[in-house]
Amino acid sequence: MKGLWLENNHLQLRTDIPIPKPPQGEALVKVLAAGICNTDLELIRGYYPYTGILGHEFVGLVEQGPENFVNRRVVGEINAACGECRFCRSAQPTHCENRSVLGIVNRNGAFAEYLCLPIKNLYPVPDHVPTEVATFTEPLAAALEIQEQVTLGTDRRVLVVGDGKLGQLVAQTIALTGCELLVVGRHSKKLANLEARGIKTGLKDVVKNGYFDVSVECTGNSAGFEIARRALRPRGTLVLKSTYAGKLSLDASSLVVDEITLIGSRCGPFLPALELLAQQKVDVKPLIEAHYPIEEGLAAFEKAQTKGVLKVLLKMDSNNK
Amino acid sequence: MKGLWLENNHLQLRTDIPIPKPPQGEALVKVLAAGICNTDLELIRGYYPYTGILGHEFVGLVEQGPENFVNRRVVGEINAACGECRFCRSAQPTHCENRSVLGIVNRNGAFAEYLCLPIKNLYPVPDHVPTEVATFTEPLAAALEIQEQVTLGTDRRVLVVGDGKLGQLVAQTIALTGCELLVVGRHSKKLANLEARGIKTGLKDVVKNGYFDVSVECTGNSAGFEIARRALRPRGTLVLKSTYAGKLSLDASSLVVDEITLIGSRCGPFLPALELLAQQKVDVKPLIEAHYPIEEGLAAFEKAQTKGVLKVLLKMDSNNK
Repeated sequence: MKGLWLENNHLQLRTDIPIPKPPQGEALVKVLAAGICNTDLELIRGYYPYTGILGHEFVGLVEQGPENFVNRRVVGEINAACGECRFCRSAQPTHCENRSVLGIVNRNGAFAEYLCLPIKNLYPVPDHVPTEVATFTEPLAAALEIQEQVTLGTDRRVLVVGDGKLGQLVAQTIALTGCELLVVGRHSKKLANLEARGIKTGLKDVVKNGYFDVSVECTGNSAGFEIARRALRPRGTLVLKSTYAGKLSLDASSLVVDEITLIGSRCGPFLPALELLAQQKVDVKPLIEAHYPIEEGLAAFEKAQTKGVLKVLLKMDSNNK
Repeated sequence: MKGLWLENNHLQLRTDIPIPKPPQGEALVKVLAAGICNTDLELIRGYYPYTGILGHEFVGLVEQGPENFVNRRVVGEINAACGECRFCRSAQPTHCENRSVLGIVNRNGAFAEYLCLPIKNLYPVPDHVPTEVATFTEPLAAALEIQEQVTLGTDRRVLVVGDGKLGQLVAQTIALTGCELLVVGRHSKKLANLEARGIKTGLKDVVKNGYFDVSVECTGNSAGFEIARRALRPRGTLVLKSTYAGKLSLDASSLVVDEITLIGSRCGPFLPALELLAQQKVDVKPLIEAHYPIEEGLAAFEKAQTKGVLKVLLKMDSNNK
């Protein structure tokens, strides 16, 4: 089958990859569409050692699996957990000590014609949700993880730093809590997406230092971190939603003096994310910048790496909607 | 009066400082004894700009103030709050936006014969608690702040990194929660203080990575931070209890992947600290390394700056117990 294969920081389109055979408990999924995420770009840059097929945001059709799943469109939780370690036993499978992660750790990913995932990781996509919309389930779930970690509500002042694809999803989910929300970024056009939904936005110099209860850092760079940090009142909470290339240098004394909480945030709950998409409470369509067939996967990556570009989707089979 | 005066990173013993006149709402306190803290050493090194009398850990005798306070021994909350800002109104006076801080920010400190503090900051010392023991109220309160921020208990595995004076107080307070506690440091003699109280200790290489729910960083250096970080399981909490000279460089991506919480921790509650001292549930005597009269204050600082030295106390009046 065709697939985008990463090896030694080099991405190539291969056509000779064998179609995988699902092990016990797993399904064989024919990939319909998949989204390119910043993590994919960072894996290519060598942020984490990985060899194999990239990709973890996908919608697919189950070809082999339990009867009630076969021929249904599904999305999938990317962490394949062992079910036996202390984290699995304490209902934290995303932190399983023995996990493989789709297209990230020890498991071939979604930028290919087929993938395998444990059946328990799969969630059927409601019929009226278009495939390209459902490819956002995984990053939307990650955005919702913030609300699993920090209580938000109408009495909170929240700042989102970053107007990229992650920042946009985070902002839309946080806006639903009714909090006082400001999103800052560098691109008026991207911010306009959010303004159109009634979300207050601005360029970074509008941030009032010490004003916010919670800030969410979605840029993955130290300038974004500084804005998120300075925006917080004492005893505020800074959510780290992006991974960082290299080390982050910070003023730890000021965290102590102001008793700031910093919290890392990764994968989140799929069902509420699917529900938001099904109810059209989040609009991902303005985030889609381009589609490419898998055969043009390398061009798709070039596009995704271009500064300011939002979501680039790969379509595995041009006959699908 | 005599006092240790800091100006342009230079500490001097002055004898010409006027005895302060307490403003409305404040008391005049004759200092009996005071402890040298790492923050004092950092202020001398220029970690924060400050000009005036140093010192914030003290016991004194009220000379002018309300009748029920006069001639009583007191300790004092070091943050003098405005009572009107949003933090004061939300019962967070230690984060008052307009605060002065005894011997640290815009308020002459305790290394002198007299000081002034708001009456509401003062707490009488129970008669049976010796003065030198009560000088530990402020740092002990800071140690207790951790338990205001993080839930500890018998089901928690807690690591304290650092066997200095702060680490020792933190360890003793955490041990009272009944959690599984390990304290690591570099000095067998200091660790022996804790072992004598039934607290498990070790040198830093005994720490099992990924094992602890909570780690408390009490060294103020990046090596200590690394130990505290690596010791944590995913979704663990790292309490930053020390201030840091300069910037701290950390792997922010690993905080995101493991969803670690980092929390800065500063001043804590005085009453529970005084209670622990009154009930002798915490033993501070092994921490006292030396006493100096105020006239030998510069020698006291030299001693306090010596590597491995624990608490150095200044006595303002050699007639006091």
